[in-house]
Amino acid sequence: MEQNELKQLVGNEAVKYIEDGMIVGLGSGSTIRYMVDALGKRVAEEGLHITAVATSKFTANQAANLGIEVKNLDDVDRIDLTIDGADEISDDFQGIKGGGAAHLWEKIVAINSDKNMWIVDESKLVHQLGVFPLPLEVIPFGSTHVLEKLDKLGYAPTFRFDENKQHVMTDESNYIIDLHLQKIEDPFALAQILDSIVGVVEHGLFLNICDKVIVGTQNGPKVLEK
Amino acid sequence: MEQNELKQLVGNEAVKYIEDGMIVGLGSGSTIRYMVDALGKRVAEEGLHITAVATSKFTANQAANLGIEVKNLDDVDRIDLTIDGADEISDDFQGIKGGGAAHLWEKIVAINSDKNMWIVDESKLVHQLGVFPLPLEVIPFGSTHVLEKLDKLGYAPTFRFDENKQHVMTDESNYIIDLHLQKIEDPFALAQILDSIVGVVEHGLFLNICDKVIVGTQNGPKVLEK
Repeated sequence: MEQNELKQLVGNEAVKYIEDGMIVGLGSGSTIRYMVDALGKRVAEEGLHITAVATSKFTANQAANLGIEVKNLDDVDRIDLTIDGADEISDDFQGIKGGGAAHLWEKIVAINSDKNMWIVDESKLVHQLGVFPLPLEVIPFGSTHVLEKLDKLGYAPTFRFDENKQHVMTDESNYIIDLHLQKIEDPFALAQILDSIVGVVEHGLFLNICDKVIVGTQNGPKVLEK
Repeated sequence: MEQNELKQLVGNEAVKYIEDGMIVGLGSGSTIRYMVDALGKRVAEEGLHITAVATSKFTANQAANLGIEVKNLDDVDRIDLTIDGADEISDDFQGIKGGGAAHLWEKIVAINSDKNMWIVDESKLVHQLGVFPLPLEVIPFGSTHVLEKLDKLGYAPTFRFDENKQHVMTDESNYIIDLHLQKIEDPFALAQILDSIVGVVEHGLFLNICDKVIVGTQNGPKVLEK
């Protein structure tokens, strides 16, 4: 199977966990696009009634166009299940997200969800986090000084630029700094350091958030429970 | 002396600490307005040459209009001295700022400054922080859930609204939540909790930042050194 077929496979598998009446968080990214398509199909064909909360403007539009009811996070009490992608998942279900620069809203949705499921291909499963660069959303004002500070801490930071050499901007109009750490010995300690740095809005470490992972493999979807 | 005279008094006193060639951080608020006026006077009358970095759009405009060279924080290496106001200062020089909703940029400027001086009237000096509501800048997306969480923690949070009952917006287009704590037993422990809450961009606790305080009293300016 090609990569896109694998993404479709896990997308189709993931929506089986969505039940009538649920409030569902919808992540962002290419795998999630397939999942939202599959969810739209269930809504259309089975008359499944759900309410969705999206983690990006892109996903919100896609879902609404498929006839899925989309609500603002601030208009629901709680999310039953959020399905999202991930850039790296360690053995103990800790993750890195933010490759798509949407990790702030993704994390806000995730922590307001009773359950979080991540859907990925096998390449995202790692023993230890850190090969994938860890994204930080940072306030533009003073951001060169944040970069310097991160550099002094040995985190090998780089601003993320687009193809026109302009800063990649988040949905909140902030910049992204990627930390090229290679390995993260203690993600919890690192999270605490990053939380305390003035100007860092949110980092891409998603710790103790994910309960279930669906992995696309050549032999079909594989479900991992925490 | 009236309140405005006291503000002018400390503003005039503060600018005496600014030396030729310095890079100076300029805070925000009504006391700072007087200080910037006094600084503009020194620049015009004495030919004092300084570079200023401002903590708000308002202050940047005021300084530029007075002929003070204003640079972006990202275009200077380091600030020599920042002069700002404060909403509360405890015996041990810890502070609360953010009454003017500018504490994010103020803190970013402050931590990039070698020295920080606060200029206030006597009413801002307290034994223990907390009577002044502690401001938080929060991401609008999901902010009702942040409010709920803060409420469960017992922090008596309220959104800050303007006279038209609209959310007060920061220079970064975020909301303000004020915590009505009455007293803060351990500001460092509280800061760590607030830092870790997803959706909180920055809190108004300024810890181990201020070196010198100039207080306006009926008997003249009083200088307190840490």
